[in-house]
Amino acid sequence: MRHAVILAGGGGTRLWPASRRALPKQFLTLGTGPVSLLTSTANRLASVCEDRLYVVTAADQVEQVQHALPELSRSKIIAEPSARNTAAALGLSAVHLLHRDPDAIMAAIPSDQHIGDEEEFRRVLSLAFATAETEDAIVTVGIVPTRPETGYGYLKLGAKHNEQVSEVAEFVEKPDSETAQKYLDSGEYLWNGGMFITKAARLLSEIERLMPETYKGLKTIADAMSEGRGDEVCARVYPELPSISIDYGVMEKTSPVLTIAGDFQWNDVGSWSALPDYRDADSDGNVILGTAITHDASNNILVGDPDKMVAVAGISNMVVVQSGNAVLVLPRDRVQDVRALVQAMRDGKLDQFL
Amino acid sequence: MRHAVILAGGGGTRLWPASRRALPKQFLTLGTGPVSLLTSTANRLASVCEDRLYVVTAADQVEQVQHALPELSRSKIIAEPSARNTAAALGLSAVHLLHRDPDAIMAAIPSDQHIGDEEEFRRVLSLAFATAETEDAIVTVGIVPTRPETGYGYLKLGAKHNEQVSEVAEFVEKPDSETAQKYLDSGEYLWNGGMFITKAARLLSEIERLMPETYKGLKTIADAMSEGRGDEVCARVYPELPSISIDYGVMEKTSPVLTIAGDFQWNDVGSWSALPDYRDADSDGNVILGTAITHDASNNILVGDPDKMVAVAGISNMVVVQSGNAVLVLPRDRVQDVRALVQAMRDGKLDQFL
Repeated sequence: MRHAVILAGGGGTRLWPASRRALPKQFLTLGTGPVSLLTSTANRLASVCEDRLYVVTAADQVEQVQHALPELSRSKIIAEPSARNTAAALGLSAVHLLHRDPDAIMAAIPSDQHIGDEEEFRRVLSLAFATAETEDAIVTVGIVPTRPETGYGYLKLGAKHNEQVSEVAEFVEKPDSETAQKYLDSGEYLWNGGMFITKAARLLSEIERLMPETYKGLKTIADAMSEGRGDEVCARVYPELPSISIDYGVMEKTSPVLTIAGDFQWNDVGSWSALPDYRDADSDGNVILGTAITHDASNNILVGDPDKMVAVAGISNMVVVQSGNAVLVLPRDRVQDVRALVQAMRDGKLDQFL
Repeated sequence: MRHAVILAGGGGTRLWPASRRALPKQFLTLGTGPVSLLTSTANRLASVCEDRLYVVTAADQVEQVQHALPELSRSKIIAEPSARNTAAALGLSAVHLLHRDPDAIMAAIPSDQHIGDEEEFRRVLSLAFATAETEDAIVTVGIVPTRPETGYGYLKLGAKHNEQVSEVAEFVEKPDSETAQKYLDSGEYLWNGGMFITKAARLLSEIERLMPETYKGLKTIADAMSEGRGDEVCARVYPELPSISIDYGVMEKTSPVLTIAGDFQWNDVGSWSALPDYRDADSDGNVILGTAITHDASNNILVGDPDKMVAVAGISNMVVVQSGNAVLVLPRDRVQDVRALVQAMRDGKLDQFL
């Protein structure tokens, strides 16, 4: 059967001050729609996998996941006792799925992405499931690039597998802008959207081959699960697993990796500068979430809580975010600097703002 | 006897969002010290006039004045039934003083100025009182200019009256920057700080001569006061007085006007760009009120409520103010644009932010 696992363990800082340690990005809407990114993602996947929907998340975020997805049974929330990166999280998810369904096909989908064209997404995901059912391969969904983006990793296309499916020749890191333009012009690259579809058993056998230490721990947990002691053993074993991403640990080394190109207005909502990709601007090019007044100000990104006012004059290409007890101001092309600011607050023990 | 009248009727918008319709600038500290500008002003004047201290304010601000100055008797607060500008407010104050002391000498002092050198201020004010006692003249305190400021009016010095007192040849409007530089270089100009010292009777007789309609109303109020019906008649008559500033109505036309030059680190706290004049900057030139974190940011003015964080990166020469339910962002050389923003909020009926 087809199952979806939503990865909701993230606690990124790039959308501070809206996202906080206690309220990561996936629990926010960030102007993408009426419900949180996590809830949107779950609704989207439920239309493909019905109730075979799981969320893997940090133990201390289980309650927030339940709040965001009140119809999701607690038994479908896979809690990581501590954060051990995506390879361990997806390995643990595969163990859980196989315990219930030895033939499980598993789609691992990030919780914090915006997708504009839901129908196209469902078409691509269904094709990816069908491909993963018949092929001994990990299938990834590649996003057709629409601009020379330097903030994403890319998939280099290899040989055609069939009319709609290609092999991935290479996973490539975030390029500089010149390289990104070449990738875009060539037509031979897709964005890596971090969505993987595979037989759960194949994922585990590849982890066994490529990450034996991780596999040993997962096998211990799987065996304990059969004896009804899964949680207890997981709490002990999981925190000792190596912290390695699924990209580095498996995807860049496994073969074949197949990919299906999707063109569904995908956005990773990865920073404040992403807002104009999915929110309309006013006639001066200002993208506004909340209430703002502008005077002789253009091409700004202005975000505030619903009952707050953001008033700006004489500025262009700036980001201004008011959220809770904090205000952030920086140029649009410097949004990555939010990390330095968050680090400075950590260093200053200003925990009330993190 | 020497009396001081603090003018506290202002409701300016130039320091929005810290100053609001319900909380004008004089009730704020704005980083000038531990107490509000009004309280500082009262403390400063009490050291010269003891308890002969009055506050003239809008009727709807009486409660706030009492809160700011708990030791001030209610009978010393002169309430304007409606705002009729400074000529009417000072005329009404003169009427009140003369009712208590026919020989009253009156210093009219704005409530919303910062003074760094209190001792020098007291010296100048005492000399101004002494001059007003012996001369049939209105005495004004002129501020020795320290920069080619375009935001203030100037006094052009005339003939020497004695070693420390000069006549004012002319009141001049806010100059452009070239003219301001000439004024500064010439040594013949002082800033008009809006502080006037005169016999109360002389002020009234000059109002009688130069503003007969205003005088008629004031006389009606004075007569009613003798009969114990002052408040009642004031409530009826005062709102009908012409709305004219004391500068335009009296000072620019009366003669002689004498002035005493003061050099006491005066600042009118007239806009956000004034902060660096009385607050030290950090090593990057950022002037901070509240809690701020900066990264690669210089020469900014950053203001926030005590429990809030203002975090900025990659910006220079900007003003960022968080106060209550609003955030303001504009360049330092565009601080006057706050008026346009406030007007836009008025037009949009966004009263909760005003």
